[in-house]
Amino acid sequence: MRFTTEQRLDDGVLEREFTLGEIPGILWTPGSASAPAPLVLLGHPGLGLRRMYPRLAARARRCAADGFAAATIELPGSGDRPRWAAAERARADLRRALEAGGPVSDEIIDELVLPLVDHAVPEWQAALDALLALPEIGGPVGYSGGVISIGVRLAAVEPRIVAAGLFAGSFVPRAIVEEARQVTIPLHVLLQWDDEGNDRQAALVLFDAFGSPEKTLHANMGGHTGVPPFAGEDAARFFARHLR
Amino acid sequence: MRFTTEQRLDDGVLEREFTLGEIPGILWTPGSASAPAPLVLLGHPGLGLRRMYPRLAARARRCAADGFAAATIELPGSGDRPRWAAAERARADLRRALEAGGPVSDEIIDELVLPLVDHAVPEWQAALDALLALPEIGGPVGYSGGVISIGVRLAAVEPRIVAAGLFAGSFVPRAIVEEARQVTIPLHVLLQWDDEGNDRQAALVLFDAFGSPEKTLHANMGGHTGVPPFAGEDAARFFARHLR
Repeated sequence: MRFTTEQRLDDGVLEREFTLGEIPGILWTPGSASAPAPLVLLGHPGLGLRRMYPRLAARARRCAADGFAAATIELPGSGDRPRWAAAERARADLRRALEAGGPVSDEIIDELVLPLVDHAVPEWQAALDALLALPEIGGPVGYSGGVISIGVRLAAVEPRIVAAGLFAGSFVPRAIVEEARQVTIPLHVLLQWDDEGNDRQAALVLFDAFGSPEKTLHANMGGHTGVPPFAGEDAARFFARHLR
Repeated sequence: MRFTTEQRLDDGVLEREFTLGEIPGILWTPGSASAPAPLVLLGHPGLGLRRMYPRLAARARRCAADGFAAATIELPGSGDRPRWAAAERARADLRRALEAGGPVSDEIIDELVLPLVDHAVPEWQAALDALLALPEIGGPVGYSGGVISIGVRLAAVEPRIVAAGLFAGSFVPRAIVEEARQVTIPLHVLLQWDDEGNDRQAALVLFDAFGSPEKTLHANMGGHTGVPPFAGEDAARFFARHLR
């Protein structure tokens, strides 16, 4: 892990870009941390860190206000990382299916999501190794956001993650629904009820599948990007309950 | 409206029992109110105010902590009010249907709930008239809890109610789902995901039907009476946002 830039934001948060091998990432740490901080991994939809930066930075500042560090890495095939032919093909297949107006087949969803999960999850785990080796970061660790299938796999296989706040905003393969049954950590699932690009019923099936004794679903109006501010506050309180 | 008892609770809340004609009720007002207080109407499942008292008083104290008055009235046919033959018959029909293990028919749900809603809603409106005439109560008014069909009808027809926090824990007639489309006030709906005595799919259909631009569904684990404490706090914050 190599830090490449460093800047202090106006609220005192220290923002550092890094590379982990070929993978770019960003780490935010609270301005005034007396002890090693808990960590929130910020998931995102893989549109590229530069494009997602304003929203990621806002979420990171909210974490820092609660005394948490926050970090994210670029997903495979996104942003400045090399194009990934299989992922581009899968996205083209999805686009064709959506334009044809038909339902999106399980095959297309599998092709689109499963290779991404298989590639991304070990990268997030490697990032976790590197981040937890820093003296300013102590854990416990939470995962927050999308791609929800990455969050499910991480919650199922990575024992250092003790709580996950997941955004039900993308297609979920059946195999991931099965993996959800293995998840037992506390979960806070956000669903935009009238999200045009999301299958509400599939999100409810996934929520039902989770094995966690504490799981909460918050459904709100406002479309895919219209999450109301109070829903963000609810998610922040979920992490405050479980990471402090 | 005639006050029959008065006591000051240890946190300074003034608790007064009253009768409104033949209907018993309880009013709680904050210990230190400088201005006329907003009001939360506390709905309940009609098991009798005496039996429900501990839970109602706890909810009322939470309201008072936010500066709100809270009030409730006995439902028709419950507690010390005269038995109501039609309601007893409907409950017996429901019990038989549940014991037979079959699905509960629309006819039984209608028979059970619609007369209750028809009788109770004008009584809550009469209570509202009397409560808002008190100098210590100013509004705005929220409705909180069950029976959810009573809450739906009140939210649809009573313009003085500006926000409703509803508990999806009882059967809902199809006619009430249709009335839900007329509701436009902010809603906070609580659903216990694995509530044995409740039809989850019906609750989701009702939530979908509401016409409100701001509506939130909070689903949690823990069975019908196992609402987690953080879910109660979320509901309190909903009223704090809309009644202050």
